[in-house]
Amino acid sequence: MNLNKDGFVKSSLFLISSLVRGVAMSKSAGCCKRFLHYAFDYETPKTLVIPSLGVGFVFRFTQFLVVMYVVGYVCVVQKAYQDTDTVISTVTTKVKGFAFTNTSDTEPRFWDVADYIIPPQGDHSFFVLTNMVVTPKQVQSRCPELPSPSTICVDDCNCVEGHSDPRGNGIQTGLCENYSTTARTCEVLSWCPLEIDTKLPEHALLAAAENFTVLIKNSITYPKFNFHRRNILPHVNSSYLKRCEFSRLTDPHCPIFRLKHIVSEAGEDFQDMAVKGGILGILIDWSCDLDWWAGECLPKYSFRRLDNKHPVNNVAPGYNFRFAKYYKTADGEETRTLIKAYGIRFDVIVFGTAGRFSIVPTIVNLGAALSFLSLVPVVADWFLVTCSRKRDLYSRHKTTHLIEDADSASVSMGTTYGTQ
Amino acid sequence: MNLNKDGFVKSSLFLISSLVRGVAMSKSAGCCKRFLHYAFDYETPKTLVIPSLGVGFVFRFTQFLVVMYVVGYVCVVQKAYQDTDTVISTVTTKVKGFAFTNTSDTEPRFWDVADYIIPPQGDHSFFVLTNMVVTPKQVQSRCPELPSPSTICVDDCNCVEGHSDPRGNGIQTGLCENYSTTARTCEVLSWCPLEIDTKLPEHALLAAAENFTVLIKNSITYPKFNFHRRNILPHVNSSYLKRCEFSRLTDPHCPIFRLKHIVSEAGEDFQDMAVKGGILGILIDWSCDLDWWAGECLPKYSFRRLDNKHPVNNVAPGYNFRFAKYYKTADGEETRTLIKAYGIRFDVIVFGTAGRFSIVPTIVNLGAALSFLSLVPVVADWFLVTCSRKRDLYSRHKTTHLIEDADSASVSMGTTYGTQ
Amino acid sequence: MNLNKDGFVKSSLFLISSLVRGVAMSKSAGCCKRFLHYAFDYETPKTLVIPSLGVGFVFRFTQFLVVMYVVGYVCVVQKAYQDTDTVISTVTTKVKGFAFTNTSDTEPRFWDVADYIIPPQGDHSFFVLTNMVVTPKQVQSRCPELPSPSTICVDDCNCVEGHSDPRGNGIQTGLCENYSTTARTCEVLSWCPLEIDTKLPEHALLAAAENFTVLIKNSITYPKFNFHRRNILPHVNSSYLKRCEFSRLTDPHCPIFRLKHIVSEAGEDFQDMAVKGGILGILIDWSCDLDWWAGECLPKYSFRRLDNKHPVNNVAPGYNFRFAKYYKTADGEETRTLIKAYGIRFDVIVFGTAGRFSIVPTIVNLGAALSFLSLVPVVADWFLVTCSRKRDLYSRHKTTHLIEDADSASVSMGTTYGTQ
Repeated sequence: MNLNKDGFVKSSLFLISSLVRGVAMSKSAGCCKRFLHYAFDYETPKTLVIPSLGVGFVFRFTQFLVVMYVVGYVCVVQKAYQDTDTVISTVTTKVKGFAFTNTSDTEPRFWDVADYIIPPQGDHSFFVLTNMVVTPKQVQSRCPELPSPSTICVDDCNCVEGHSDPRGNGIQTGLCENYSTTARTCEVLSWCPLEIDTKLPEHALLAAAENFTVLIKNSITYPKFNFHRRNILPHVNSSYLKRCEFSRLTDPHCPIFRLKHIVSEAGEDFQDMAVKGGILGILIDWSCDLDWWAGECLPKYSFRRLDNKHPVNNVAPGYNFRFAKYYKTADGEETRTLIKAYGIRFDVIVFGTAGRFSIVPTIVNLGAALSFLSLVPVVADWFLVTCSRKRDLYSRHKTTHLIEDADSASVSMGTTYGTQ
Repeated sequence: MNLNKDGFVKSSLFLISSLVRGVAMSKSAGCCKRFLHYAFDYETPKTLVIPSLGVGFVFRFTQFLVVMYVVGYVCVVQKAYQDTDTVISTVTTKVKGFAFTNTSDTEPRFWDVADYIIPPQGDHSFFVLTNMVVTPKQVQSRCPELPSPSTICVDDCNCVEGHSDPRGNGIQTGLCENYSTTARTCEVLSWCPLEIDTKLPEHALLAAAENFTVLIKNSITYPKFNFHRRNILPHVNSSYLKRCEFSRLTDPHCPIFRLKHIVSEAGEDFQDMAVKGGILGILIDWSCDLDWWAGECLPKYSFRRLDNKHPVNNVAPGYNFRFAKYYKTADGEETRTLIKAYGIRFDVIVFGTAGRFSIVPTIVNLGAALSFLSLVPVVADWFLVTCSRKRDLYSRHKTTHLIEDADSASVSMGTTYGTQ
Repeated sequence: MNLNKDGFVKSSLFLISSLVRGVAMSKSAGCCKRFLHYAFDYETPKTLVIPSLGVGFVFRFTQFLVVMYVVGYVCVVQKAYQDTDTVISTVTTKVKGFAFTNTSDTEPRFWDVADYIIPPQGDHSFFVLTNMVVTPKQVQSRCPELPSPSTICVDDCNCVEGHSDPRGNGIQTGLCENYSTTARTCEVLSWCPLEIDTKLPEHALLAAAENFTVLIKNSITYPKFNFHRRNILPHVNSSYLKRCEFSRLTDPHCPIFRLKHIVSEAGEDFQDMAVKGGILGILIDWSCDLDWWAGECLPKYSFRRLDNKHPVNNVAPGYNFRFAKYYKTADGEETRTLIKAYGIRFDVIVFGTAGRFSIVPTIVNLGAALSFLSLVPVVADWFLVTCSRKRDLYSRHKTTHLIEDADSASVSMGTTYGTQ
């Protein structure tokens, strides 16, 4: 077989030269004829047809296997004929619900969205406050440290002025003060009174948060295919959206989720998670095959806890952060309420890859498959000359051995024939 | 054609054995010779050259088509010879502008960036407040619900203590109170007075926001190619940046955008959108061909509204969220100003794929194309034996039929020759 | 060589027909025999074996080169046999540390996490306040503009009521007031007193921020391979995490970073960067080869400044934004403290591609490589008929020229034989 890569160049040159020279061709007929022969003589392999069912079957069966692989695996399973694009998405979230807390530690309080959603914007990541340690009325002043091996002191000599322990709560003033009737600790300059975050409520303060609902609006784009879509599907109407709630079985396309349902689908218990906080992923999979009717491109929701719950090496388990509300007293002094907020951060993670038929991957994959077809004759030839019954006969007619040593250039085939 | 995959192994073995055995070769000359023949005899197909212009033209033309496809489509259009990488980007945004509001409902107020940009950090997503419902001086207390079919009551029997309607505004106390002179509703425990969000101004409060400008600073990286770039191009100088404003025609590389211009390029009316809010995507496309002079890698800006405006199933149209500013009165009571903020969230979405010549995709795609070249002789052979004028002649000389039945192993070619 | 793509169809048809017709085959034996011949006759190229060491060596060496390329470059270097997936990740950050400021301009103040981290949530992007311009006790009122060529006035005629200069600070009231004893400027309606942001401290206020530490918790997923991992590695225990600090040499897997270390690894000076602010990328590379023991999939940290430091065209250098804390005075008037915050925004950027053996890319790449193997005989044939010593002999036996003109259909080979 002749894979002349320079065929294109050759024939182009020929076409150009033909046009240019035109009738002048007859003059340089000899030269031209040679060129024509060079460019257009077709060299084809001589072949031997072997009417053997066995070899033929091996050949066809190997071909069949390759074609089955191409059709079955590459095309159907892997969709290797498609060009792919990655999703670009926008998410809006809106939480609804309120709660009332009335525990022994805190005064009765009503909570609405503006109180427990941080940040308020309703981005792809929102935090629902479920538990907290509140330290109200902090002012910039001095107070004794919380007792710990490194802060307990006997007299002022144990405290170094200006020293700041990274695990402490402020800058030491060099004095040793009474923390309680039993303990004396170094005095620090800090926001006082200090936060005592060991007194975290064992039952989540906003246990009612499990009944809050969240509406997730998600618009996606596959820019390469100019394909746009929302998770609120076209056939869904307003009245349905007012009362529906996501359920994998009955309402798989309702974009309103009950927080408790999200957490339990992720295999966690809401009340358990609410105490120390955590991060929960709401995964929206937009993987689509755009070759079929586009209406079939639907979001698939799944839920997974993203932080580790009870690993051996659990530093700072759960999810919490500190923030403060700043006030000014009548006399202009700044005071703040420090809140160590525990809660569940919901991360809406949108991912997906869309595929649509494209000629380049098709060609590449078909090309690769054709390469395997070109292996088929190798297999069949090997079978022919090694395993088939009449292998000597086939081999003798297929292959000619050139005997170089004899300068008379006789070929083995000829010789063989002669002796028969 | 012989596609011996084991050629490598064979020749390696041979080289090793040659080195090891060295002069000892002469001793085991016979064995060695057989090995040499096995490893280095070259088996080449016998070919027949057919001096037919027709067949030659079919062959060359088919070759030409395949080469044209490879050069034209795969290389030029699809750039299949490139390795690709996805963009990693950082965005900073800074809005400038101020406004003055003076409507009948609210007292005169001056607004600057710290007032209307939420969150203030200037991330890839920023929100410009354009309209709002303000409920000042809310305190934790009791007040009658807003009138609705489920909250209107005649006497206390209609209200259940502790009941909380998800569509209501608080937890019922079990009392029925006068909401107005005409309506009695159940009293709830909540932040009072309740927000009445139906009184949304019909004209956006901060209509002047359309003249605000935003400076977008965007740095991108293609980590695979170690390629870094900013959207503030090297040839742009400071004085230009101080006065320029993005315009597709006159200033396509100015990174300062007027909000009104962004919205109108997205096909929307700013004043219309400002009333109920919405989400607007500022898409920056960094798709680049890094094989050419890298300076040609420029950001392409486009603008698109990301939420749906007037669909049939429009729940919670526009974009809004609630947040509160917390205050403390002189006697320590917490009070808040609840703001239902309507406005436009601008999402800066950076995407792009860069391509640069790489040997692997080139090899893969050339390989696939070569496979198609190997189909060319199949086409030409088919034309040769079925369509060409002298097909019998060609076929007779190209193909030899082995007649197995005759055990004397005569071949048809031989026979043919004999009869001629 | 025969690359019959229709082999599959043919053989399928044949199998079906065989089943259907069964014993009826003997009836239509003649037709069937023809069909069998058509489907199962095996056509194989006739070959000539040339016992030439030179040609054989060229053939084997070319084969060797192709195989080396496939094994060495495609498989080992580029891992083209792998299917790839892009990382999905969640990040939590928690900064620790406090500072005490006592400069001539401001009163002494203690700073903790709730004061200097904005936003407080500890997302993948967090901002550490290092410097600021504070404008306390702003109220909605009137005050003279800051002096600049466009605001300086002589009398009221220079000021236009209602005019708002985009580079100014408010809406002009039309009056000309004394700004200082030497300058008169137009009065504006704004938050007064106006911010004077030229008085930025030359040494960063929170210089101590360089010793703050940040714990970065990062969970990643490769959805295609169902592979989950954290940057806190399984073999790391709690006590180690309490005292460790990231260091490329001694503690490369400790997820706690000292801010100064991050900045210096990015090639910057913390104190320098802290004055005007900037953006620093903490890049976590999760590129993994999942074919090997998964434990080897480790995060690689690197640090890079993402904004440009000293470019020629530096508009708004560094990183800053304005935010306000709102207070209410005892008589209900709203007042705010405006803070122009300078600082370092740390963006945790997680990227990576995982590869795992997959049959489709393997097949595609092997296919492409096989295509190159099919080029080997072309090279060897070219060497055979142009460069080898006995090229005439080889050429004569390999190639048969069909002499069409002689209608007697004698072939050149025959002729050649005859003359020998």
